[in-house]
Amino acid sequence: MVSERLQKQIDFILELDKEKNILRQTHLTNHGRRENDAEHAWHMAVMAYLLKEYSNEEVDICKVMIMCLIHDVVEIDAGDTYCYDEEAKKSQAEREEAAKKRLFSILPEDQKEELTALFEEFEAGETAEARFAKAMDNFQPLLLNNSNDGNDWQEHGVSAEKVYGRQGGTKLGSDELYKVTDEIIKYHKEAGHLL
Amino acid sequence: MVSERLQKQIDFILELDKEKNILRQTHLTNHGRRENDAEHAWHMAVMAYLLKEYSNEEVDICKVMIMCLIHDVVEIDAGDTYCYDEEAKKSQAEREEAAKKRLFSILPEDQKEELTALFEEFEAGETAEARFAKAMDNFQPLLLNNSNDGNDWQEHGVSAEKVYGRQGGTKLGSDELYKVTDEIIKYHKEAGHLL
Repeated sequence: MVSERLQKQIDFILELDKEKNILRQTHLTNHGRRENDAEHAWHMAVMAYLLKEYSNEEVDICKVMIMCLIHDVVEIDAGDTYCYDEEAKKSQAEREEAAKKRLFSILPEDQKEELTALFEEFEAGETAEARFAKAMDNFQPLLLNNSNDGNDWQEHGVSAEKVYGRQGGTKLGSDELYKVTDEIIKYHKEAGHLL
Repeated sequence: MVSERLQKQIDFILELDKEKNILRQTHLTNHGRRENDAEHAWHMAVMAYLLKEYSNEEVDICKVMIMCLIHDVVEIDAGDTYCYDEEAKKSQAEREEAAKKRLFSILPEDQKEELTALFEEFEAGETAEARFAKAMDNFQPLLLNNSNDGNDWQEHGVSAEKVYGRQGGTKLGSDELYKVTDEIIKYHKEAGHLL
């Protein structure tokens, strides 16, 4: 006999499985297939652990890791919104708000509150942990795309200006990783991979 | 100019990307495709966080999570060994030892030592954190397979005895999750999904 509490936790865990089928615009290294949300979140969490020395501020790395692991959960309902797709971004907030409510409500009340708070803290980007987790959310696809000659940008005709707009946020979490980001963007701009 | 240290960390991060192409025998829920190592590790780490109250002992959940995230890294070189494939298991230790050395050596020396120690602690299963992480390594595919009518076992003609041999380890990390495990195995034995 599984307790009601554990059953809710198991239901949420099985619901999470769907993140493995949400495809992103980023491709795996060696010009591989498109990456999914679960893989992206896993990669970000390991990166956070390995690169924590570059955070501008002291961080609770455990909190950063769990933020990384769950930050895309709303995409189960709302789908992935490509960060340079302005049209889709207009309805993104509304779609993700509804998804957040439905998904975290599967959990027992205390964990619903805890995960909602972690998710919202990440989204708001106003704590050291959220800033560093967001730097990972930028830096992870940047590294993959850089290894693939910037093909993800080329495919969508993205401009360097747009990339700076998004990747500029990395500076808030890590000056050191932003320096590398800046070098990578400059390289691809010069190589003609970015408009 | 990227420092030598950061370059090594980035090299390791890009090498990790290959885990996304290592397929396991487990299938995603709703009779989906085969799961890969990165997805499995992500799922385990979130589960560890959500289910930590069921650990038999107090655990440093941050340590459990990073163990979950990296526990299959050696499979980049050694491939996935199905836990009920006795032939493949004979050469598993040797293959994984060589992989461990090569992969963690990509990192700066201090992180090579740190990750090797975490990996070996998981493998040895002699600390509270390793025992709980190993319970996740069992419970995660069990939940997926249970949701798919035990098809992963049926496909390989696995016996209940073998499943108990493997899943019995969950008891060391969590009596509570082992109770659920036992109920699930009994159900599939009765349903004829296990020999």
